[in-house]
Amino acid sequence: MSHWKLTIAYDGSPYHGWQVQPGLPTVQGILAEAIRHITGETVLPQGSGRTDAGVHALGQIASFSLESPIPGPNLQRALNNLLPPSIRILTAEAVSAEFHARHSASRKTYEYRISTHAICPPTLAPFTWNYTWPLDRERMHQAAQHVVGTHDFTSFAAASPDLATRKAGETEVEVDAPEMQEQSAVRTIFSSGWWRQEEHLLIYRVTGSGFLHHMVRNLVGTFVDAGRGRTSPDALPGILAARSRSAAGPTAPPQGLFLLEVDYSFPRESR
Amino acid sequence: MSHWKLTIAYDGSPYHGWQVQPGLPTVQGILAEAIRHITGETVLPQGSGRTDAGVHALGQIASFSLESPIPGPNLQRALNNLLPPSIRILTAEAVSAEFHARHSASRKTYEYRISTHAICPPTLAPFTWNYTWPLDRERMHQAAQHVVGTHDFTSFAAASPDLATRKAGETEVEVDAPEMQEQSAVRTIFSSGWWRQEEHLLIYRVTGSGFLHHMVRNLVGTFVDAGRGRTSPDALPGILAARSRSAAGPTAPPQGLFLLEVDYSFPRESR
Repeated sequence: MSHWKLTIAYDGSPYHGWQVQPGLPTVQGILAEAIRHITGETVLPQGSGRTDAGVHALGQIASFSLESPIPGPNLQRALNNLLPPSIRILTAEAVSAEFHARHSASRKTYEYRISTHAICPPTLAPFTWNYTWPLDRERMHQAAQHVVGTHDFTSFAAASPDLATRKAGETEVEVDAPEMQEQSAVRTIFSSGWWRQEEHLLIYRVTGSGFLHHMVRNLVGTFVDAGRGRTSPDALPGILAARSRSAAGPTAPPQGLFLLEVDYSFPRESR
Repeated sequence: MSHWKLTIAYDGSPYHGWQVQPGLPTVQGILAEAIRHITGETVLPQGSGRTDAGVHALGQIASFSLESPIPGPNLQRALNNLLPPSIRILTAEAVSAEFHARHSASRKTYEYRISTHAICPPTLAPFTWNYTWPLDRERMHQAAQHVVGTHDFTSFAAASPDLATRKAGETEVEVDAPEMQEQSAVRTIFSSGWWRQEEHLLIYRVTGSGFLHHMVRNLVGTFVDAGRGRTSPDALPGILAARSRSAAGPTAPPQGLFLLEVDYSFPRESR
């Protein structure tokens, strides 16, 4: 028995998210099918968390175990040969049996990309939220810094109707919550800020212990409200304290969101 | 009656090329449908040339005439509201009745993008030919410079089997040949060269009086043969002289190709 950790990049545009769904193309489903094709084994690779439809990843992590003996480079090459160009295996590493892509994760980093072109270039459209109203980067950065630290993020969690749509057999309330924290919306954010990467490209980067469902997109929608002048950057502490989804801004669209990196080097206790 | 010139950018990935085809999504077909929706008029916008399935455009030109009086900015806005994000109208200009996107064109510029990542980033995959063998940029540039000037490009035209697949009603042999040159494979290339834009991105730019079907992709496949060491850069004059498709290299895949610009400022005689 060998245990595997894959680092995966994907363009989420053609997929109904990470999580396997009967009859729909998902990253997890297509990956499981490729592993089955190569090894003959039916396994469900566990992701560090689900990503929603249209959300991308540059460093998603998946773990699974195989009976078949296969060297890592061969597994990686065989998967990349079988998988569509929209899903790439960046590394395939043998790990100990204790490793679990979701349970072992200590930190995650997401990036959100907002472009500000009058007309969004078509080649950019699948990978950005194009926003044509003027945005004040400094106000957005100021708002973003208010969420650093340990907070109850109920105001930024997907509202309850989302739970009603969960499919039978799903046990998680949140995208990436470990079981022990399922009922809690408390998360720690280590860094959170906005940068202007190019004239027409604003980048949000956030690193945290974990994220509730839609949390990054709800944060971004709220920061954009601040950048546009609809709310004050200093309204953030009050929005957090309200513990109500209606206190925060709208959900930013999925295509601007990238899962950048999952960190396993910090002890679990740091969550 | 008003006459229109549109400048159009599109991500060709989801389309079966420019030209309208029954039951298949094409850029021309979707644009015609949007114009009909806005004006109630059934027109077929004429492109400066067809682009094949998967080929992109940053500056395709289309022309058509309308009975409806509509200001240019309103037409542009209405089209961009209706069209998918993968097709954008960059400008909508009123032109004289004599203007025809294909017949009036004097020069066209194409770009071809080759990336050289060991593993191609999924977000780049729809917009580049990822080539993992080492390529010598200088050899490719040397080969590319041999095609500058007026030549018979038969060796770089789509081989005849392609003609057999033409649909009834099509009258052009080439993508963008004016009627007067339909039977001729003689074209003038004004500039042709390779640049390394980033560490893992090679760019080919070519400007010419017109291009035969698959001509840019066949040139690129041949330059890649030179860059990889399969042929000498100085074999190009002989390949041109052979006037035989089998003398040249393979056809590069469509997704690396972008129609950049169509020029109407030179007199037609300069073709």
